[in-house]
Amino acid sequence: MAGSTYGTLFQITTWGESHGAGIGVVIDGCPAGLPISEADIQEYLDRRKPGQSKFTTQRKEVDKIEILSGVFEGRTTGTPISLLVRNQDQKSRDYSNIMNSYRPGHADYTFDSKYGIRDYRGGGRSSGRETIGRVAAGAVACKLLKQLGIEITAYTKSIGPIVIPEEEYDYECIRQNHLYMPNNTYADQASAYLEQCITNQDSSGGIIECVVTNMPAGIGETVFEKLDANLAKALMSIGSVKGMEIGDGFQAAKAQGSHNNDAFYCDGSGIHKKTNHSGGILGGMSDGSPIILRAAIKPTPSISQPQDTINKDGENISMTIHGRHDPVIVPRAVVVVESMTALTLIDMLMINMSSRLDRIIQFYE
Amino acid sequence: MAGSTYGTLFQITTWGESHGAGIGVVIDGCPAGLPISEADIQEYLDRRKPGQSKFTTQRKEVDKIEILSGVFEGRTTGTPISLLVRNQDQKSRDYSNIMNSYRPGHADYTFDSKYGIRDYRGGGRSSGRETIGRVAAGAVACKLLKQLGIEITAYTKSIGPIVIPEEEYDYECIRQNHLYMPNNTYADQASAYLEQCITNQDSSGGIIECVVTNMPAGIGETVFEKLDANLAKALMSIGSVKGMEIGDGFQAAKAQGSHNNDAFYCDGSGIHKKTNHSGGILGGMSDGSPIILRAAIKPTPSISQPQDTINKDGENISMTIHGRHDPVIVPRAVVVVESMTALTLIDMLMINMSSRLDRIIQFYE
Amino acid sequence: MAGSTYGTLFQITTWGESHGAGIGVVIDGCPAGLPISEADIQEYLDRRKPGQSKFTTQRKEVDKIEILSGVFEGRTTGTPISLLVRNQDQKSRDYSNIMNSYRPGHADYTFDSKYGIRDYRGGGRSSGRETIGRVAAGAVACKLLKQLGIEITAYTKSIGPIVIPEEEYDYECIRQNHLYMPNNTYADQASAYLEQCITNQDSSGGIIECVVTNMPAGIGETVFEKLDANLAKALMSIGSVKGMEIGDGFQAAKAQGSHNNDAFYCDGSGIHKKTNHSGGILGGMSDGSPIILRAAIKPTPSISQPQDTINKDGENISMTIHGRHDPVIVPRAVVVVESMTALTLIDMLMINMSSRLDRIIQFYE
Amino acid sequence: MAGSTYGTLFQITTWGESHGAGIGVVIDGCPAGLPISEADIQEYLDRRKPGQSKFTTQRKEVDKIEILSGVFEGRTTGTPISLLVRNQDQKSRDYSNIMNSYRPGHADYTFDSKYGIRDYRGGGRSSGRETIGRVAAGAVACKLLKQLGIEITAYTKSIGPIVIPEEEYDYECIRQNHLYMPNNTYADQASAYLEQCITNQDSSGGIIECVVTNMPAGIGETVFEKLDANLAKALMSIGSVKGMEIGDGFQAAKAQGSHNNDAFYCDGSGIHKKTNHSGGILGGMSDGSPIILRAAIKPTPSISQPQDTINKDGENISMTIHGRHDPVIVPRAVVVVESMTALTLIDMLMINMSSRLDRIIQFYE
Repeated sequence: MAGSTYGTLFQITTWGESHGAGIGVVIDGCPAGLPISEADIQEYLDRRKPGQSKFTTQRKEVDKIEILSGVFEGRTTGTPISLLVRNQDQKSRDYSNIMNSYRPGHADYTFDSKYGIRDYRGGGRSSGRETIGRVAAGAVACKLLKQLGIEITAYTKSIGPIVIPEEEYDYECIRQNHLYMPNNTYADQASAYLEQCITNQDSSGGIIECVVTNMPAGIGETVFEKLDANLAKALMSIGSVKGMEIGDGFQAAKAQGSHNNDAFYCDGSGIHKKTNHSGGILGGMSDGSPIILRAAIKPTPSISQPQDTINKDGENISMTIHGRHDPVIVPRAVVVVESMTALTLIDMLMINMSSRLDRIIQFYE
Repeated sequence: MAGSTYGTLFQITTWGESHGAGIGVVIDGCPAGLPISEADIQEYLDRRKPGQSKFTTQRKEVDKIEILSGVFEGRTTGTPISLLVRNQDQKSRDYSNIMNSYRPGHADYTFDSKYGIRDYRGGGRSSGRETIGRVAAGAVACKLLKQLGIEITAYTKSIGPIVIPEEEYDYECIRQNHLYMPNNTYADQASAYLEQCITNQDSSGGIIECVVTNMPAGIGETVFEKLDANLAKALMSIGSVKGMEIGDGFQAAKAQGSHNNDAFYCDGSGIHKKTNHSGGILGGMSDGSPIILRAAIKPTPSISQPQDTINKDGENISMTIHGRHDPVIVPRAVVVVESMTALTLIDMLMINMSSRLDRIIQFYE
Repeated sequence: MAGSTYGTLFQITTWGESHGAGIGVVIDGCPAGLPISEADIQEYLDRRKPGQSKFTTQRKEVDKIEILSGVFEGRTTGTPISLLVRNQDQKSRDYSNIMNSYRPGHADYTFDSKYGIRDYRGGGRSSGRETIGRVAAGAVACKLLKQLGIEITAYTKSIGPIVIPEEEYDYECIRQNHLYMPNNTYADQASAYLEQCITNQDSSGGIIECVVTNMPAGIGETVFEKLDANLAKALMSIGSVKGMEIGDGFQAAKAQGSHNNDAFYCDGSGIHKKTNHSGGILGGMSDGSPIILRAAIKPTPSISQPQDTINKDGENISMTIHGRHDPVIVPRAVVVVESMTALTLIDMLMINMSSRLDRIIQFYE
Repeated sequence: MAGSTYGTLFQITTWGESHGAGIGVVIDGCPAGLPISEADIQEYLDRRKPGQSKFTTQRKEVDKIEILSGVFEGRTTGTPISLLVRNQDQKSRDYSNIMNSYRPGHADYTFDSKYGIRDYRGGGRSSGRETIGRVAAGAVACKLLKQLGIEITAYTKSIGPIVIPEEEYDYECIRQNHLYMPNNTYADQASAYLEQCITNQDSSGGIIECVVTNMPAGIGETVFEKLDANLAKALMSIGSVKGMEIGDGFQAAKAQGSHNNDAFYCDGSGIHKKTNHSGGILGGMSDGSPIILRAAIKPTPSISQPQDTINKDGENISMTIHGRHDPVIVPRAVVVVESMTALTLIDMLMINMSSRLDRIIQFYE
């Protein structure tokens, strides 16, 4: 419960600070028998690493993953998988203004309020580098899900005011532009918008959408451990996420039941729904339709224009933040959303296995 | 983890079905020494009970609470508090069409997918009556929070298209209208809209907002157990909630950093923020400003017009749902949102007590 | 974690005090589809209820169980099962000496140290009546295990100095004598010993042994959640248990490896061990042999001879305890040991289901 | 729950195999502000490292600890502390007989039963090297406890038939002999006994005792999370422990209440007990007296004489185990017992902080 562990049966524990020795994660409860290599994980880390474009921090980190345990002869053994990324480009610089002051929109003040001490170098534990552990573990979770035929696709739906309407999605484009948007034209518009933000010493927020296909029906528990409740926690636990929704989400609040209800129907291939306003979840359990999630991400708080704030002595000051920052974190957070979704799904799939006596009996026969 | 338990140190376990013997909750980990009576709890239950207006189900339930344990001579003893509400108006009726068919927008299909068996009477465990346990425990949590000076106020911000702008809020009105809206004029408009829904055999969604004042800074854990992550789970675990946000929420996704960052300042009375776009949470911890939450609630899926669906045999059918249903559940869910918020806050306040060594030493001196 | 909940996937939460309204338990995570009735549970409760012989308290309680939820048409539905026993014989008496003084060997002093308040009537939450919830839930767990072919048998191995050697066990006798001993002659000797204890206003301890047969191999996790570690916690959580061991237990500490190692061998019917010094557990996992557990139970602390102690004001006093007490609790604790063992096993069997990828794939095909 | 995580608020997660890249632990929930260095931790690891005497494996490992996170400018920050020990002497050898056969008394067979795959090199995860993570974390826990004035002392009480009576304890001797026994004469006798074991290609078990002084009263929860229940789990989770007891333990089963009850008394310095048969725990909570624990450890299963067993193909074979093994693991397990005790105590001390409302109010004032 201490806060750096996530999951019940498939459980991860992350650690590490921006400018410490490294960042890592321990995956405990990974089923035995999954073929996994450092290359499998590296592919995911490369999608979040810095320096991919001019819109991401120019910090130079290769973020090379090392598997320290839990894999033997190329397969998981069921024992904990420890994954390590050494920090490399911990640029030596002057932290005196961050050390003694509270950057607006950052966790400096709240960290000091809670702990009375703070590793201020590069944001310490509240740095975006903390997500390396999530993504490394997410890569393993995604590979497990693929064995079950389940696919997760996340992408940037909007950056600032540039929003891609659903009917203009082209998933093929997602990896064709640096913003991970499913439409290259909108990506160009968003790039132009971000250039302007940089010029103005400002930053932008955005929305990430995530779609899960081929999820079996009935996964999730029925009261507090609803699938959507856990997905909400998963996404809201990512730094900078300020809202999340499933299916029609906030639009559903304006709708009427006759519109919002999804009619079931049957055809030769099984049970379906005519619409998917529910976003694939009913009563806290997957309903067999694609799961559709959205996360609202706030603008990067680190902007280089002067800002009013206070220092540790309670004096009102003006502060200018230097350093290497992303004008938008949305593109790099896409794979983090994918990872947190995957971690949640595999855990709930595992938990679900004991829901029926007949299936337990069959399992142990 | 089995799904009906919530919380780590302040932990509740709910149980009960709509048409079973009763509904209840066990609160484990409630600190010793809190004065609590059945009247304290009844007041909260009365705010969610049916029959308060024409917009709520006409099922007759007094929902009378009984304290079975954990309270001695009017005070909590630190041992589990068991609370029980007997069901009374379990109207005997014909369930044959619900029993064999899957109502759109309901959990019938997903329950059968998961468990292969379902107490179909009145929705069983997926009935809104499940929230009685949450509210009874929430009443205790609210009383604890009040001892610490923390107040929670929830209300209906919108019903369907009727949205109250923040500048027209009058908290005095909240308990003056049956919709728990902080503006009586808007409440009248919403009533008219709901009348129309009833006429059209339809239902409406809405948004509940919740404000927490006087929360100390630094509460919440820094990675997966962020305060906002847990609040997200808390709210999304309420049936029919399809989205949640903190502070500016989805608006933040469109904003720029220079606008979204809240400037800190100091005056004689302490540390404050000039704005509160963050909604009182930074880096997963409370920042000392009011916490502002919003939950999007979908329209009641039970509508009396005929709907297309399937039965258990996989046949496409048309179905008409009879029975006693709310055209909108938003007003009754207000106290549920308040309760889930309170349960989350008290748990995280308790967890936070061991965050610093100096305070542990002081505690045990 | 608040302390009245046990288990991860098959999870129980108990509540209730000796002289409150009642005692109960909520079972969450019970698989759907188990046929269960109040009679099934009552049978277990009857084995622990008071008044079975002159060696158990004469308090008159029928301990009649009521199923409040989670069972529909005679079968579990996968939702929480709430079980309630109303207290009946809460004899009205004068508690003034217990209220203000600390009985030796009891939890009075530690309760006050922890909570600063205590329901002193009949021991409150620390009464043996707390085990009603464990046994009611244990009855359900035992019935589940039987569906998997797993049987649990517990019995009194010793009372005070009267110890039955293994070679004189006759399991047929266990329910033939009030002490639940697997040998009637020893039971007679033990009865005589207990008579003497009563005469001397004294009490006796004893050892309970528990054997589990037909447990599949490989159940239990490999580090902190070892099967034996969880069984140790399960048994030590029962009031008055001061020690526990598996297989040869403390004897193994005196042995040599050549004796203690159990040789594996194969025959037509599968893999076996020539001996079972391990008590059915190797490396924290079941090894396919019978699991053998022992719990050491201290003498009942309530004895009617005068004892030295202190009162709340820190004064040294002599105290005489009146009331209805068992000179030995071992026989009534037999079914509690059985229950705690069953609860642990079913939970770990459920957790084990996701240990291998190939079996997960097969499950979801 | 996946099994490599221990604790609720002070939580550790261990990982690593005997012949993998290394062994490590992540401590999550360590309070901020504790001064800690690699030297503090190394001191504990040195007490369990191999090669200390002829009675421990001759594997050459310096077991050098590296702190990767969570410590800033010499103090803990409240964020996860990741600790790493690289394996060095992973002797390259022929594992073919271990790979395909099941060593008696080892976890080979149960690992294969559970996971269907096993890192057989040096026992993989079931190697005693797994305890490095426990001890590294235990060093941190011990340092925390010392800040609260709480001291833990563990030692070897017996090796095979050589048992030190309590009246002959001299704690000064514990670190004067390689067996960590509190009496050098008995240590000499035990050494002679072990020499004989080596000559006979055999091994020995033993008992470790652990004493905790200055523990405040009232720590531990009252039902399933009793302090003794958690200590039982803590000790039984250590490989090779087959039994544990508190205070008089199994002796209490033979005793009478008049002997076993500890009389309270008061003097100028506070509340005390005339005896300590309870071993410092009453009703699952510390009673202010020293906590006394004992763990029974089985003889090392690796012995070099030929043993009957089976191979993976189910054939009956004779097997001879080569390699570097301890004829007794008891001395090296002493610091492991100390560590698991410390981890349990600090966690329960932290959990206890929210047991009373008045103290919560005081904390947040």
